[in-house]
Amino acid sequence: MTSTADPLPPGGLMAAEIGEQAAAWQRLLDAGRDNIAEVAARIAEYGPRTIQFVGRGTSEHAGHYAKYLVENSGLMPTGTIAPSTMTVYGARLDLSGTLVIAVSQSGGSPDLVTSLESARAGGALTLAVTNNPWSPLAKAAELTLDIHAGPEHAVAATKTYTAELLALYLLVDRMRGGDGSAAQRIPDLGAGLLDRDADIRQVAQRYRFVQRLIVTGRGFSYPTAREAALKLMETCYISAQAFSGADLLHGPLATIDSQVPVIAVVPTGAGGEAMRPTLGRLAERNADVFGIGGEGLISGLAVTHALPEDVPEELTPLLAIIPLQQLALHLAIARGEDPDRPRSLHKVTETL
Amino acid sequence: MTSTADPLPPGGLMAAEIGEQAAAWQRLLDAGRDNIAEVAARIAEYGPRTIQFVGRGTSEHAGHYAKYLVENSGLMPTGTIAPSTMTVYGARLDLSGTLVIAVSQSGGSPDLVTSLESARAGGALTLAVTNNPWSPLAKAAELTLDIHAGPEHAVAATKTYTAELLALYLLVDRMRGGDGSAAQRIPDLGAGLLDRDADIRQVAQRYRFVQRLIVTGRGFSYPTAREAALKLMETCYISAQAFSGADLLHGPLATIDSQVPVIAVVPTGAGGEAMRPTLGRLAERNADVFGIGGEGLISGLAVTHALPEDVPEELTPLLAIIPLQQLALHLAIARGEDPDRPRSLHKVTETL
Repeated sequence: MTSTADPLPPGGLMAAEIGEQAAAWQRLLDAGRDNIAEVAARIAEYGPRTIQFVGRGTSEHAGHYAKYLVENSGLMPTGTIAPSTMTVYGARLDLSGTLVIAVSQSGGSPDLVTSLESARAGGALTLAVTNNPWSPLAKAAELTLDIHAGPEHAVAATKTYTAELLALYLLVDRMRGGDGSAAQRIPDLGAGLLDRDADIRQVAQRYRFVQRLIVTGRGFSYPTAREAALKLMETCYISAQAFSGADLLHGPLATIDSQVPVIAVVPTGAGGEAMRPTLGRLAERNADVFGIGGEGLISGLAVTHALPEDVPEELTPLLAIIPLQQLALHLAIARGEDPDRPRSLHKVTETL
Repeated sequence: MTSTADPLPPGGLMAAEIGEQAAAWQRLLDAGRDNIAEVAARIAEYGPRTIQFVGRGTSEHAGHYAKYLVENSGLMPTGTIAPSTMTVYGARLDLSGTLVIAVSQSGGSPDLVTSLESARAGGALTLAVTNNPWSPLAKAAELTLDIHAGPEHAVAATKTYTAELLALYLLVDRMRGGDGSAAQRIPDLGAGLLDRDADIRQVAQRYRFVQRLIVTGRGFSYPTAREAALKLMETCYISAQAFSGADLLHGPLATIDSQVPVIAVVPTGAGGEAMRPTLGRLAERNADVFGIGGEGLISGLAVTHALPEDVPEELTPLLAIIPLQQLALHLAIARGEDPDRPRSLHKVTETL
């Protein structure tokens, strides 16, 4: 949290933390190895038949990414625990055979702690994925995965989001028998995207007066769309809505015309390819589309920002969110807002 | 689908189908009894440890409601299958011990059929909840629950949504040992709300020029908020966003000021009570809130519409959506749109 005496320019904290991401990932890759191996071994010993994620906001999106990773790897079905089930309705579920993964930057949300305690009482194996291994959440869980992102001061979570993604990737890759090697290149690729910050600052100008906006992606990129929408909401106060490229065609497409900008996350891979019909329908509606992804998918769109090719689609969410974080930052500043002092938000949100 | 020679006024189909809901529920209560008992018996025989829902748009919201019902009843954990997992990424999951419930009005979406076939191949017990028991989806499933809503012609689903809710309620109530008796009063209570249509037509005028809007609720009412937002998007082209009352405090609250109207679904019960802190935060932001729910929760809000008291909260989603369907209808008409001919939408959306 900044004090009013803080000499940083508007968004200075958020900008610094966006810029730290490649280094944070490298730290996790180096320092997290044993932790990940141990957690994976304990999970294998328990032998879950299903995984339930719990988390809110940015951390819910990280869990949503992990859901795709687990299921698309053919590991097991997953679900999401609504905290209200345990905290509001007081339900007690038999969770034997269930791995419950709570994701939280701070590890301080009381509703998550309660949910995890309740899950543990119900027989689940519990894991906290957090930036604070001494937090109440970590204490409530049997297993902890430290995301090693370093202290996060900006209200808008950026580096902890991608560190959560990477920690979950490394864990799931281990669970399916991998060694995380595909992720070794990710810090370099991320640094390359961070270097293109000026391009996004330029793009941001075009959305200076936007009040509503749509972000869309499919599969692995759907959580990216949701996270981008949340960043734009909390820093720019835009009504940013995220839809999977398939759901978009079930109703929300009708809200789009040339005055409602769309951001499409279309990395090279099956999920990006599956967006072709959605991009076609958007073109029919004269939508103004900013494409972030593979060259072959974004060419011809109103604005484009290419992602590195030749990276497995399942790792692209770490990269694709970077220009979208940069967009939230620069657009907030362009609109005269300070993303480090968003109205009505606290760093740790306490809900029951 | 209407033809251009159709003599109905704008929204005539949608209005008629909204009005049919109480009768449709009564039909399901009477004609669906044996079907529900048989499906529940087959499920008990299979003995699932978890349920996975699959569906899109309005039908996804019905599955979301059922998730709360199953989990808040303490039955078992649930999840949602992303169709892309099977149709885009071609994953094959071991779904033994899993009940997969596909919800679809038409039963015609190819991605749901593929998902259900894939789930069945993976060892799941499969159930189609549909308005068309002769549909490809019903054929692909081992079990079918006919929602008995009668043909739905309006593009915006209304009566099939609440019939899906009621069918799922009756099934889950049977699974937990109930006999559905609490639902017997629901048609009468629904008819009472349908009779208050003129009040909502009046309320709709106030949103004539709105471009963005928030709908919120917790627990059982969160799917109601999502369905209301979808109706407003597809008929009025408003950027309507739904958030759980807890998620709203994690970022999206910042987008709200006195110019962004909020609709809060706060029935009497634990979920409505849990919305008090959210209503407090909305008041701090000078939000203009339309409250639908219990008298004690909505009093003092800018606009109010009371729901019948003395009904279990788990059944209120059937009732709370009615004024919101009426709002979508009347607001579309007030804005000069024909909700029976929404731009860019088809009745059956084909996505992979």
